[in-house]
Amino acid sequence: MKEYSKLASEILDRIRCHRPVVHSITNYVVMNSTANVLLAMGASPIMAHAPEEIEDIMVISNSMVINIGTLSKHWIESMQLAARIAKITKKPFVLDPVGAGATKLRTQTACDIIKASVPTVIRGNASEILALSPQGGTTRGVDSVHTVEDALDAAKTIARSLGTVIAVTGEKDLVTDGENSLVVTGGHCLMSYVTGTGCAASVIVGAFLAEEKDPVTAAASRSRGSTSKALPPDRSNVMPSRWKTVS
Amino acid sequence: MKEYSKLASEILDRIRCHRPVVHSITNYVVMNSTANVLLAMGASPIMAHAPEEIEDIMVISNSMVINIGTLSKHWIESMQLAARIAKITKKPFVLDPVGAGATKLRTQTACDIIKASVPTVIRGNASEILALSPQGGTTRGVDSVHTVEDALDAAKTIARSLGTVIAVTGEKDLVTDGENSLVVTGGHCLMSYVTGTGCAASVIVGAFLAEEKDPVTAAASRSRGSTSKALPPDRSNVMPSRWKTVS
Amino acid sequence: MKEYSKLASEILDRIRCHRPVVHSITNYVVMNSTANVLLAMGASPIMAHAPEEIEDIMVISNSMVINIGTLSKHWIESMQLAARIAKITKKPFVLDPVGAGATKLRTQTACDIIKASVPTVIRGNASEILALSPQGGTTRGVDSVHTVEDALDAAKTIARSLGTVIAVTGEKDLVTDGENSLVVTGGHCLMSYVTGTGCAASVIVGAFLAEEKDPVTAAASRSRGSTSKALPPDRSNVMPSRWKTVS
Repeated sequence: MKEYSKLASEILDRIRCHRPVVHSITNYVVMNSTANVLLAMGASPIMAHAPEEIEDIMVISNSMVINIGTLSKHWIESMQLAARIAKITKKPFVLDPVGAGATKLRTQTACDIIKASVPTVIRGNASEILALSPQGGTTRGVDSVHTVEDALDAAKTIARSLGTVIAVTGEKDLVTDGENSLVVTGGHCLMSYVTGTGCAASVIVGAFLAEEKDPVTAAASRSRGSTSKALPPDRSNVMPSRWKTVS
Repeated sequence: MKEYSKLASEILDRIRCHRPVVHSITNYVVMNSTANVLLAMGASPIMAHAPEEIEDIMVISNSMVINIGTLSKHWIESMQLAARIAKITKKPFVLDPVGAGATKLRTQTACDIIKASVPTVIRGNASEILALSPQGGTTRGVDSVHTVEDALDAAKTIARSLGTVIAVTGEKDLVTDGENSLVVTGGHCLMSYVTGTGCAASVIVGAFLAEEKDPVTAAASRSRGSTSKALPPDRSNVMPSRWKTVS
Repeated sequence: MKEYSKLASEILDRIRCHRPVVHSITNYVVMNSTANVLLAMGASPIMAHAPEEIEDIMVISNSMVINIGTLSKHWIESMQLAARIAKITKKPFVLDPVGAGATKLRTQTACDIIKASVPTVIRGNASEILALSPQGGTTRGVDSVHTVEDALDAAKTIARSLGTVIAVTGEKDLVTDGENSLVVTGGHCLMSYVTGTGCAASVIVGAFLAEEKDPVTAAASRSRGSTSKALPPDRSNVMPSRWKTVS
């Protein structure tokens, strides 16, 4: 197995050195906190949703994150435009399908963006990933009512059928390209009591994608980014992330 | 008099146990902080304003909060739609008339929402509640220029005429259904130097309403929610909330 | 040279005493943090972007800040409307051209607002100010890729040609009306790793403008506001701001 801990550190060094521009079209709730997460990692965040500037933004950005947490009609159009440009320009991007399964609009918007351009990584909680699987699934809101393990089969199926990487995050993370699956431990049960920890995970994957071509490595590295950057310093000492393959 | 302190603790236990979904259509300034307040209480916040998903959101949510702090035309339409659905589905909801009295748009929007569906609780600062009274009133901005006592008569009048509960919050809180009025102490003069403490009060009332049918009890319980959750831990020790009836 | 340290303290006292209303049309990322900065200074923030209430808001506000960090068509129209009203009512206002030079939309929007009404102060990072100069300039995102010194000549040229005051902020600040230029030290290299420190500088200048007619003094005072209010208390002790004239 790859030495993910070492790889993650190396990618983080490249991020700090190159300061990649990470473009986010994201929800109002987490704009401030995810901008701070990106800055703390050494990346340069830019938040922009006007269709008139999406193309210019894509030229200067090294990766992109689309997060559907607070939707409206015009924002959906911008997200689809950004996804189409990402496809043409081969720019890596993360889709965070916040609340997929909670409302038809959210499930449909996530599916439409995937149709416009297959994301490099789809990062969601277990309920959201289940909602995107062929079997579908519903959830109560934006908080997961399923465990990461519940979503293992669905994540593999989606990854294989779309040719993408799925990252299901929670107290532990699952990363899969459909063939190879990793579980990364080192999270904390209290994370679900702070808003935007999932959204933060998505932008961290976005920053890693700007400097790492392999999306499994980029997505698996996010735990390193979280523990060393987004959580209090003592956290990484007491419970370091561990990567292990699962079948 | 009811033992509000005990009641508030019991409702808080039910919130932690059931994790009610609280739907907010709120202003950009406080989306992050109010989501965190709801999570800290044990509730599950969802922020959504697109008219296309309001109905789906209302199905999964246990209560709702409408906060008019940063308005625009399309958001006002969604607020009115949500209020109408709340009426049909008998879902409890809180109206937070941020800046009523400061601009005609805000005063009018608050009145239009009330006309669409009488809120279960209207929570505002003293100036905002005065602005909604038949005598009207103006204010300088979104910060109160009146004391809670100034708004006592106006609060009772509005409560009686609409058949709702008014919560005027500040360093002390006033809760009234027009007949029974309570003053809850335990706030702090520094709260007005932090943005969104009033908006936080509104979502806390929203969460209590999800688990408590009596709106006076739900609104009076919010102080318990604030002191035990939103303020530093030592606050609840030094100055516990006290409930007393007023005439 | 004026005793800026003493002047800044006196203006800050007036702000605390009068609680001026500072109107912001700003970006989603920093609404919460800049509202808190204004409250901490003693000012009363109001965030409003609906064209229907801009006129009412301008009547009650003592100064205004326009920040173009997250643009869309309707917001640009409101910004231009607010600028035109500021011109008619002679209300002081700050323009923060976030990301000028990064996209055509941002550069153009900043120029259009300046055309609608010359801001009392334009506050930006070095790259943004360079982008607004006749020579133009491009940048990678919203973070500066130039030093404050790089922008000295451009700042003077813009200030002279428009008859405004330019504040270029970073680890050190430059304030110029084209004739008189000041450098204010006392910043910190870590400020660029926290989102919204530039946006905070803009609202601080906005609050100072509400109580001080001389825009150079108001803009130069912001460092006092930042070090004594927005940064941890020990910062102002270890590295007090120093004002010095430059040629």
